Amino acid sequence: MSAAQGINVAIIGVGLVGTSVIQQLTTVSGLSSKLHIVALQNSKKTLLASSASALSLGSGSSDWKTQLSESTTSALSLPELVKVLEKITSETGRHTAVVDNTSDEKVASFYPEFLAAGLSVVTPNKKAFSGSIDLYNNILKHKSNDKVGSKGPLVYQESTVGAGLPIISTLVDLVNTGDEIVKIEGVFSGTLSYIFNEFSTPKGGSKKFSEIVKFAKENGYTEPHPNDDLSGSDVARKLAILSRLVPELATALPEGYLSVPTHSLTPAPLADVASGEEYVQRLPEFDADYDALNKEAFDNGSVLRYVGVIDVKNKEIKASLETYPASHPFASSLSGSDNIIAFHTKRYPTRPLLVQGSGAGADVTAMGVVADLIKIAERRS
Amino acid sequence: MSAAQGINVAIIGVGLVGTSVIQQLTTVSGLSSKLHIVALQNSKKTLLASSASALSLGSGSSDWKTQLSESTTSALSLPELVKVLEKITSETGRHTAVVDNTSDEKVASFYPEFLAAGLSVVTPNKKAFSGSIDLYNNILKHKSNDKVGSKGPLVYQESTVGAGLPIISTLVDLVNTGDEIVKIEGVFSGTLSYIFNEFSTPKGGSKKFSEIVKFAKENGYTEPHPNDDLSGSDVARKLAILSRLVPELATALPEGYLSVPTHSLTPAPLADVASGEEYVQRLPEFDADYDALNKEAFDNGSVLRYVGVIDVKNKEIKASLETYPASHPFASSLSGSDNIIAFHTKRYPTRPLLVQGSGAGADVTAMGVVADLIKIAERRS
Repeated sequence: MSAAQGINVAIIGVGLVGTSVIQQLTTVSGLSSKLHIVALQNSKKTLLASSASALSLGSGSSDWKTQLSESTTSALSLPELVKVLEKITSETGRHTAVVDNTSDEKVASFYPEFLAAGLSVVTPNKKAFSGSIDLYNNILKHKSNDKVGSKGPLVYQESTVGAGLPIISTLVDLVNTGDEIVKIEGVFSGTLSYIFNEFSTPKGGSKKFSEIVKFAKENGYTEPHPNDDLSGSDVARKLAILSRLVPELATALPEGYLSVPTHSLTPAPLADVASGEEYVQRLPEFDADYDALNKEAFDNGSVLRYVGVIDVKNKEIKASLETYPASHPFASSLSGSDNIIAFHTKRYPTRPLLVQGSGAGADVTAMGVVADLIKIAERRS
Repeated sequence: MSAAQGINVAIIGVGLVGTSVIQQLTTVSGLSSKLHIVALQNSKKTLLASSASALSLGSGSSDWKTQLSESTTSALSLPELVKVLEKITSETGRHTAVVDNTSDEKVASFYPEFLAAGLSVVTPNKKAFSGSIDLYNNILKHKSNDKVGSKGPLVYQESTVGAGLPIISTLVDLVNTGDEIVKIEGVFSGTLSYIFNEFSTPKGGSKKFSEIVKFAKENGYTEPHPNDDLSGSDVARKLAILSRLVPELATALPEGYLSVPTHSLTPAPLADVASGEEYVQRLPEFDADYDALNKEAFDNGSVLRYVGVIDVKNKEIKASLETYPASHPFASSLSGSDNIIAFHTKRYPTRPLLVQGSGAGADVTAMGVVADLIKIAERRS
């Protein structure tokens, strides 16, 4: 096997997901010969492969965290990183993919320049695909995923929706083989799934909304500020990502997730509360409102679920609190913080294609990233 | 775009699935520039591209069925077909994939020779992957799906389990990224799904087993001879296919599906009944037996489901009739002839990754085939 085989991987962001990505790349049998880590970068430091060989991060070498913190190279600017990666690409004779494990808007808006330099991009970062249509189109222009015979850069983003669950790849396969998407409907937020699975059950609800949110926050199921989940914007971002993969809706959302009608679960008086602690403290003032909604659903034999809906026929995309009858899969088969996504299509007309499972967590998110890297290695090595 | 871009496609078998494959390849926007049909073959005739250009099968040209039936070339033997395809590959400068839409054992056992000639293979035919380990190993030896940097032939088989549902690709991604499969459990037969969804519900069952089978046969939900479904061998084949993709079980089934303990639903006295009509006529003699099983399950708050189980830890693979509590997804969320497959893994420990949806039918089966062809075009064009 020549040194030119496989691809190079440059990793930006080494938090929870980044750490798990590195762990999988360095310990899973067979991966190190396909995926050669040549750069690691956090906000402070950059660790670079010094020659044509990849970084030595596995067992036997010193821990990558130590190596990174002891690196004498300060964090490179993104244009500097591109230059270094172009050099490594040329020296190794291997294609290079950048993995963005941040949730940084600045890194996301730099994707077109990575791509213009011939670098592929893999990421769980939702920002680039759920923001303005201009950035998105600029990415589309440079990526060559669907261009026959091209050896240009690729973009993979499985983990932007449902983490490692096969959501993006399934939608892409449906569209590419000519199926017609009628409606995509699902519980896209693990946090909101957990909250409503606890709050609203076919047997009614015995817990206070505010107590569930408090418990979820204390156990790390929510973002540090629960409004980041309860505002619905994370769901709106996922809807923007998916709807842009549906040909009829490719240009439907000029401002991305901001163009998606989104029902915020945060009571208006709490919208500007800056501290997550204060937010949770004041939430009980509004329990009666949540209870009334829950009771109305229960009296109709239904439960409340916070869902995202992409209705292709009516060109309606929305993130909202809806009721589902107790027999519906969203009511009956969901538990914990599971995501569930239903694809109603021309080929799956009466009963949808369903994918369900944990849609958050470092390991499953990293799994989607690594599976995407393998696909790039298959296409470019 | 040069003529060399994309790949060639040679199609063996033009029944229901084959027809749908051709329909998708000739009508879905963008596919004809990636996937060039160069040969069609049924048991009587072969239609070949006469020059470096692909067959003209779309609108404007005469119907492919007419072209095939009017072809002056009798069906080529498989070795002859290989020679012709090698020539076409060389003349077009394009990689060539063979699509086997038959359920023919003879075609399946020829895959190693297709591969040895550098031809990729895509198929919904379960025979090659669920038969003897020797044939399977011979295929593995030639296929280069996981070989870094190889430009050799590829094998894709998404539609062998769950038709177009993302089952094989999901399992491959889990394994390739280092997840550990604990258990795979599912309803793998659309026919048996339909029969038990009708027969055994959380509210009990009001219909006779034999009546449901009769209705299913009359409406084409079963094979012409219902024993082909009720014997469980189709489920056993799918279990053989999946378990070979789990590293710990790769060599567990020397005789393939024949090595899988399989519970036949056919009463022993009917095992040798040659005619499907007679089989259905005599089945009512055994309704009391089926009713007793159903009543026992119901009395325990459960339903009957015919499932396949791959228990990796205990190395137990079985196709059998099991009971599930009324709250279990196999009891509550299944309807029609849906398949449902649950992946219990190290990363999905408490709640499995679930895929559910129609697992049979020409269009969804063809979709899996065409999606596989696109993946080969992405890797080899």
